[in-house]
Amino acid sequence: MTHPDTDLPPHNGWHLPHVVRALRESREVTHRVRHQGRLRELPSREVLTHIMQGLSAALFPTHYGRPDLNDESIDFFVGHTLHDTLGMLNDQVRRALMFNATADASEDADLAPRAAATVRALAEQLPDIRGALFSDLQAAWQGDPAATGMSEILLCYPGITAIVHHRIAHALLRLGTPLLARLIADIAHARTGIDIHPGAQIGRGFFIDHGTGVVIGETCVIGENVRLYQAVTLGAKRFPADENGHLLKGQPRHPIVEDDVVIYAGATVLGRITIGRGSTIGGNVWLTQSVPQHSNVSQALSRQS
Amino acid sequence: MTHPDTDLPPHNGWHLPHVVRALRESREVTHRVRHQGRLRELPSREVLTHIMQGLSAALFPTHYGRPDLNDESIDFFVGHTLHDTLGMLNDQVRRALMFNATADASEDADLAPRAAATVRALAEQLPDIRGALFSDLQAAWQGDPAATGMSEILLCYPGITAIVHHRIAHALLRLGTPLLARLIADIAHARTGIDIHPGAQIGRGFFIDHGTGVVIGETCVIGENVRLYQAVTLGAKRFPADENGHLLKGQPRHPIVEDDVVIYAGATVLGRITIGRGSTIGGNVWLTQSVPQHSNVSQALSRQS
Amino acid sequence: MTHPDTDLPPHNGWHLPHVVRALRESREVTHRVRHQGRLRELPSREVLTHIMQGLSAALFPTHYGRPDLNDESIDFFVGHTLHDTLGMLNDQVRRALMFNATADASEDADLAPRAAATVRALAEQLPDIRGALFSDLQAAWQGDPAATGMSEILLCYPGITAIVHHRIAHALLRLGTPLLARLIADIAHARTGIDIHPGAQIGRGFFIDHGTGVVIGETCVIGENVRLYQAVTLGAKRFPADENGHLLKGQPRHPIVEDDVVIYAGATVLGRITIGRGSTIGGNVWLTQSVPQHSNVSQALSRQS
Amino acid sequence: MTHPDTDLPPHNGWHLPHVVRALRESREVTHRVRHQGRLRELPSREVLTHIMQGLSAALFPTHYGRPDLNDESIDFFVGHTLHDTLGMLNDQVRRALMFNATADASEDADLAPRAAATVRALAEQLPDIRGALFSDLQAAWQGDPAATGMSEILLCYPGITAIVHHRIAHALLRLGTPLLARLIADIAHARTGIDIHPGAQIGRGFFIDHGTGVVIGETCVIGENVRLYQAVTLGAKRFPADENGHLLKGQPRHPIVEDDVVIYAGATVLGRITIGRGSTIGGNVWLTQSVPQHSNVSQALSRQS
Amino acid sequence: MTHPDTDLPPHNGWHLPHVVRALRESREVTHRVRHQGRLRELPSREVLTHIMQGLSAALFPTHYGRPDLNDESIDFFVGHTLHDTLGMLNDQVRRALMFNATADASEDADLAPRAAATVRALAEQLPDIRGALFSDLQAAWQGDPAATGMSEILLCYPGITAIVHHRIAHALLRLGTPLLARLIADIAHARTGIDIHPGAQIGRGFFIDHGTGVVIGETCVIGENVRLYQAVTLGAKRFPADENGHLLKGQPRHPIVEDDVVIYAGATVLGRITIGRGSTIGGNVWLTQSVPQHSNVSQALSRQS
Amino acid sequence: MTHPDTDLPPHNGWHLPHVVRALRESREVTHRVRHQGRLRELPSREVLTHIMQGLSAALFPTHYGRPDLNDESIDFFVGHTLHDTLGMLNDQVRRALMFNATADASEDADLAPRAAATVRALAEQLPDIRGALFSDLQAAWQGDPAATGMSEILLCYPGITAIVHHRIAHALLRLGTPLLARLIADIAHARTGIDIHPGAQIGRGFFIDHGTGVVIGETCVIGENVRLYQAVTLGAKRFPADENGHLLKGQPRHPIVEDDVVIYAGATVLGRITIGRGSTIGGNVWLTQSVPQHSNVSQALSRQS
Repeated sequence: MTHPDTDLPPHNGWHLPHVVRALRESREVTHRVRHQGRLRELPSREVLTHIMQGLSAALFPTHYGRPDLNDESIDFFVGHTLHDTLGMLNDQVRRALMFNATADASEDADLAPRAAATVRALAEQLPDIRGALFSDLQAAWQGDPAATGMSEILLCYPGITAIVHHRIAHALLRLGTPLLARLIADIAHARTGIDIHPGAQIGRGFFIDHGTGVVIGETCVIGENVRLYQAVTLGAKRFPADENGHLLKGQPRHPIVEDDVVIYAGATVLGRITIGRGSTIGGNVWLTQSVPQHSNVSQALSRQS
Repeated sequence: MTHPDTDLPPHNGWHLPHVVRALRESREVTHRVRHQGRLRELPSREVLTHIMQGLSAALFPTHYGRPDLNDESIDFFVGHTLHDTLGMLNDQVRRALMFNATADASEDADLAPRAAATVRALAEQLPDIRGALFSDLQAAWQGDPAATGMSEILLCYPGITAIVHHRIAHALLRLGTPLLARLIADIAHARTGIDIHPGAQIGRGFFIDHGTGVVIGETCVIGENVRLYQAVTLGAKRFPADENGHLLKGQPRHPIVEDDVVIYAGATVLGRITIGRGSTIGGNVWLTQSVPQHSNVSQALSRQS
Repeated sequence: MTHPDTDLPPHNGWHLPHVVRALRESREVTHRVRHQGRLRELPSREVLTHIMQGLSAALFPTHYGRPDLNDESIDFFVGHTLHDTLGMLNDQVRRALMFNATADASEDADLAPRAAATVRALAEQLPDIRGALFSDLQAAWQGDPAATGMSEILLCYPGITAIVHHRIAHALLRLGTPLLARLIADIAHARTGIDIHPGAQIGRGFFIDHGTGVVIGETCVIGENVRLYQAVTLGAKRFPADENGHLLKGQPRHPIVEDDVVIYAGATVLGRITIGRGSTIGGNVWLTQSVPQHSNVSQALSRQS
Repeated sequence: MTHPDTDLPPHNGWHLPHVVRALRESREVTHRVRHQGRLRELPSREVLTHIMQGLSAALFPTHYGRPDLNDESIDFFVGHTLHDTLGMLNDQVRRALMFNATADASEDADLAPRAAATVRALAEQLPDIRGALFSDLQAAWQGDPAATGMSEILLCYPGITAIVHHRIAHALLRLGTPLLARLIADIAHARTGIDIHPGAQIGRGFFIDHGTGVVIGETCVIGENVRLYQAVTLGAKRFPADENGHLLKGQPRHPIVEDDVVIYAGATVLGRITIGRGSTIGGNVWLTQSVPQHSNVSQALSRQS
Repeated sequence: MTHPDTDLPPHNGWHLPHVVRALRESREVTHRVRHQGRLRELPSREVLTHIMQGLSAALFPTHYGRPDLNDESIDFFVGHTLHDTLGMLNDQVRRALMFNATADASEDADLAPRAAATVRALAEQLPDIRGALFSDLQAAWQGDPAATGMSEILLCYPGITAIVHHRIAHALLRLGTPLLARLIADIAHARTGIDIHPGAQIGRGFFIDHGTGVVIGETCVIGENVRLYQAVTLGAKRFPADENGHLLKGQPRHPIVEDDVVIYAGATVLGRITIGRGSTIGGNVWLTQSVPQHSNVSQALSRQS
Repeated sequence: MTHPDTDLPPHNGWHLPHVVRALRESREVTHRVRHQGRLRELPSREVLTHIMQGLSAALFPTHYGRPDLNDESIDFFVGHTLHDTLGMLNDQVRRALMFNATADASEDADLAPRAAATVRALAEQLPDIRGALFSDLQAAWQGDPAATGMSEILLCYPGITAIVHHRIAHALLRLGTPLLARLIADIAHARTGIDIHPGAQIGRGFFIDHGTGVVIGETCVIGENVRLYQAVTLGAKRFPADENGHLLKGQPRHPIVEDDVVIYAGATVLGRITIGRGSTIGGNVWLTQSVPQHSNVSQALSRQS
């Protein structure tokens, strides 16, 4: 209750009542229809950060949970962590369901069982998610000569943090909670500089090295054993709009990357194009057309003076 | 008071007195004139982070404050949050004023009323800042086909975090506290990967998508409804120096971007050039000369083998 | 012990025993040989973050420690902070030594004295590390016209955060704890977007401006007074593999950058090439061949339509 | 998620599965009927401690809230603190209602509106509770020659802490939530050594000096301007039982103390007796019979050898 | 690292070096022989408080752990809490063993396995301790007409807190760690005002009502189904000394209380006397001689004027 | 900023504006003259609790500070802890000086140097306070047959906690800050059940065993080597009042206890009487007259039926 680092305000204060009233007026102008007759509690970024720590700990208990687990304690830890985490997630899912585009107040009574079913479905998928993540770890080990061991990869590679968040965010998106999925994606983005839209479909054995500045768009489809480096963009070329100029949402507009492709740092790949299986895209390349299997695309040279 | 995770040091210790003495000698060599006869307390990054959370909460109470506010409680929340936050800011402003280039000890008695006046002026500007931020939110909504609602934009878009911080940092810079402004800018940079110097002038309806790697320089002037993508640089081409080779500080050296311009990912725009109204600058473009209104600049193609 | 934000689970629960069992089976498939007969406790990213705060505070007490230190208290602060921090580090080093590639159980008894010797050696190097960092601060002051003072540089420049972490990580790597070094490097990467492998050798007077997206590889050798801008990559061109296709680890494969070189934003420099003393590499340049002293390399121009 | 001060368990562990199973068997033996078909979430002592801090702060904002409030901020603080605190209380009341003796599962749907009505009724009573507490403060000021000011009394007197908690606990008891009332009473007891059952009826101007060891029973009735010292017991003499030897709960069995009575340290007053208005009960007195108005009861003298 | 509520010290400071030196001299005078050639780390009251919370939670999971446990999660919670808690206890036991009167440096190598054996033995006893505590709960229910349910007794009765701590402290004392036992006893004493020496032997079905001021000495022997009220002392009459006047430690000097005894508030029972089975000792009684079975002792009446 | 355990309030809320207004009216009735033209910031119980932890740690570094200190680190710890603690104390003293009875607004400018002088004087006294406390520890060791070592006494004896707090509170009272002294005394009272007014003068070698319920009044004078047990009261018999019936504050009204006196549990000693050197006062004795040196006072026996 005490706030020790606040100075006493000067005697005549900050004109608080005036500022509060002006801010209220600003709110009333801008979102007059906010409530729509019901109070909707937003999901919490802070709680979702805890949830992601909990799910990561359940998936890789000694690396993301506690380092002191042994054979007799590890299942107790996993079970308790899941109980704790899934309970928090249940509450966040319930909140998020209210923000779905199609939600209206008549469905509110239905939210609790839908939230529980969503959480149960995610829990059911966790072992498969762990399997996919293990393939990603193996890809990192095989792809980076600087890696000295699995523990280093789990603890120090932002690309692993990004894919752990993405695989869970993608599952939540498919289970019908896009707002939670986006929050989880941005939590990973803020921590790693890697921005993967939760809608992107990504196959097993995926590895991003260094990672800062990578952007992977909503409708990307990425095959197995694909490797990206920092600052790669898999983006949209232009945004289809309807006859009124409003953007059409959800249209396929990002690249398809087939199996066994490597894309080097700074490459920009735009539009619903396909990079054929086994291709290599060089650093800083700007690519807006499909390339066949086993292509090798590189940038024009720089000029030296 | 207890520090449970510290091991007992080995019996012969770390040679602490020796190391402490050597570090003192290192300090004495390097900043002999540190005090200049008075003790100046630095602003605190941690406290400024809290201040930015408080101001964000006062501006958008349900999204950045608490999700459970209703009509009878929201003004109490806003008023209390401002009281709390502005008191902390008052103390930070007072500290920061001592670090202004022109400050000397003779003015110290004057700092408390100057700090209070600065805080009061910022409070007065908050409703207008909120108005500008609302135009930024609308720009995000109109500019990104992946956005599903205002709540997603407020909670998940690093570009929004960046502009919230910038508009407050810019106001504090103009009110005479550049060190606080820079700290706020770097708090946003660390969280979003977007580096906007607080001196940059940015019009309403500004939107940065994805954002990692964006750099906007100190003397940029950006019009209304401008949209940037990740890794765009609006930088200086070279730095004017005086006859002794010392850099001239504060000279206009960054681009002017007029209204309704879009700059795609990775474009580099350098020097005091002007991008005319309504222009589009393509991804990865390298631009060091002014372009007229409604220009369309794009990169040379890559070579495919 | 209370967890107030967890909802009661629905009556039929999450099928926890089933999920826990499936996760156990997933772990057993993927790392059957984890223990190798001993329980190895991993280093903690959270504790290392505290250690880096403590070492930073010991090096620059008023900027990274407490702003209220004066002549009679500063050595007490430094000595106590080192005692606290080096004790924590001792424990982390002991853990990390177990993860060295060559470690086996027969050496475990030896770990405590080796950890203590490592910590003592690092403590001994701190004054020299401080000297190098001071040269980096001076380089920042001389290289950025927007800088208004040393305090701004220490508090607000991500490039300084990155080099403080790197110089300590590099020392720890040379002292035989690569896993700690990598964790420290990634702590800095997550906060700044600057990814410097701890193996890189970097001379005095080093400055990175803005910094997001910079990547500096493991075997880089960088001279004195080198300046980089955001999104510069000093990377490997390709990875030597042995006859079985396994990557050869630790081979020199990254650039040598001689003294007094400036590399502008977005430049990509790949392979074991040498950039001669006094050269300037322009923004977005793609460079895979050595250049002589005082070269000036710039990008081909963009096309305007 | 990390627990840094936990040692690695020895290799053969603690036999956790065995201990967990034995504890489960112990639970199953002792409370086989715990659930009664529904899961009831207990109120939280920790949350109630926060609630009492919040209500105390709303009642005496500068003493129990924040010391820096001024005329423009105090109502914002009070309103926000009440919003925060009453929301927490609402949840605790809902939980507590499930534990009422008469509660059964068929009423669960009804709990949310009943909880809200309870909280609203308590909020309505707060100004009157504050009035009664102010009379208690005045009694402390008039009764203790060592008191130097109202701030000392509010901040340093355990008797004030006890009566603040009691007046709120008593109100909650009358509003139908005895379990919360008892928890609040024990929070005060643990902090002050003063044990007042929330059922006790206490008039205005009540003061307990020093207070350690005071016990005031469930069915006490205390008039106005009564003063007690440490270790006074107002207890039951014996407990009426039914024909089966089971204690009868809720019977009047504690003293009635009329207005203007003083009871000195260590006095023990037992049974449904009446201490007449204006009486004085001496230290260490043992009293089990009613005394008329203006009585003066003192202990037999000690023997000196 | 920041300490926001510390003022800048005045310019001439606190004469810290002088005060530090004088305190060092004071330490050197008073405990010249402290180290005895080895550094002994003291147990931590704060960590023991966490350990007691953890053990309490393992014994009564929904009341002292988390209220949201259900059939599928409760064993995971108990197992994980024990793993966490017993690991912390292991470290505290190891420290405490160094402080045993007979400990010397030659035994230090032996401490780790002895600590682990101690913890394993305590874990083994937990189900029996739970059984004894359940008999104490039943005694509270049967002995207090104000009790409304088992949850109230577990959450609100200081006598239960005291006996939970005592039964564990007593077990640790018997397992050879008296310093931990005393710390746990004082943790309970500070919270409840009930001071039970861990050496006291206490039978099943024990209940203390109200409790403030109760003192139970080291060599007390208490039978089954004994009930005490506040401020009861079971103490020593005098302390046997050896021929040099030094107190003899550990001699039987406190009362034996047989089964089914009730001792009312404020009674003082001193010396190695026996209170026979089924006796009742009245409030404020002073008793220094044994009484036979089924005695009924009460105080002389007070004098009324 | 998030408050996860607050439920959404019901739709019609708590009538907050009404309750806030009623509470404001209640405040305006009861302390109309609160401000007296200046805003006075109250000292903080929470901060004083930290200050007492810091001073205790500076006095007994390994027991109340950190257990891992060794010869090379202990002075750094003591010096840093004092810097930290005395800075906090300086701020609290400055606040407290405003609340002295004689303070008025004209003296406010003078408060900062007076606060600094007060803190400096207390720091100067710390070594002597430590000496007195060491004599108290020796008295505990000699007086309690259950004590097994100095560490047990420092860590587990509430009487030691009480006298550590008292000796500092008494010094602060004499230095002119009675409000801080009283807060410190009540912090000790809440933790130990021992209530010593900071005005009491207490000689060296003082020991209170068990302690719950001890009360020592403002004007007590206690000699050297005095020992008290639980529930001893050294109180006032009656309070002198002036002709208007107002209590006279500060008059000598509590006992004088000469050297080498022992007072057993529950004894009540009232009024300005003298207990002669070397006397023994028995348990539960009620004493209101002076007794000569070497007296032996005991209670009348209880009646047995």
